[in-house]
Amino acid sequence: MSAKKSAQVLIGGKIYTLSGYEEEDYLQKIATYINGKLSEFEEIEGMNRFTMDMKATLLEINIADDYFKAKDRVDKLEHDMELKDKEVYDLKHDLISNQVRIETLEEQTATLEAEKKELLALKARLEASLEDALLGTD
Amino acid sequence: MSAKKSAQVLIGGKIYTLSGYEEEDYLQKIATYINGKLSEFEEIEGMNRFTMDMKATLLEINIADDYFKAKDRVDKLEHDMELKDKEVYDLKHDLISNQVRIETLEEQTATLEAEKKELLALKARLEASLEDALLGTD
Repeated sequence: MSAKKSAQVLIGGKIYTLSGYEEEDYLQKIATYINGKLSEFEEIEGMNRFTMDMKATLLEINIADDYFKAKDRVDKLEHDMELKDKEVYDLKHDLISNQVRIETLEEQTATLEAEKKELLALKARLEASLEDALLGTD
Repeated sequence: MSAKKSAQVLIGGKIYTLSGYEEEDYLQKIATYINGKLSEFEEIEGMNRFTMDMKATLLEINIADDYFKAKDRVDKLEHDMELKDKEVYDLKHDLISNQVRIETLEEQTATLEAEKKELLALKARLEASLEDALLGTD
């Protein structure tokens, strides 16, 4: 387990000292993200007539919106992944069936090749015997 | 495109009227989520000595943390999905190769079966001819 860390971040022009198990990079990323939202808010017309409290709540809603959108994406991806896993399972199953079919056919082909060889040899012997028999009748 | 809607939500005991393209259910879900965070915060010891402003920032950081965790999960899932797609692609490729191999073997088997049938017929004919020839020599 990682040790508890502490880092200073600047959010909305104020310094906050955060302590926890997160890396400083991660906390700075969060600070940058929130500052970006604050900058966007400042550009929205009529935002000044809102109280600090209202602005904070709107910001919380805005971040929560990002969170729920990401969460929905996670849910969708997890669902897609389940389907994909099922597809992989089915494909592997088909591959095994095919492999069995290939082995059966290969054995069958080998047997038939051997039989063909034997029959050709037998044919040659029969033809020779027939030739001898026919010559003998001359 | 959906029409702009407006809904009232209760966050931290205050009523906010939100307008946008989101469904009311979704906005209420966000409100419930933020209120849950606020309740958790109230239970944390020493939280009272923080100013409203600090509390709001801590809440923003906390929600942003949920967002980034979900986002990381999205990134991981998207990466896994890419690998899974690659796996499906490879499996389909193997299946097609196998299918071609099966077709080749099936054709080969059919040809060999036909050849065997012909050779057996030829063998029968040769055997009959030989028998005739040998009988004729008697």
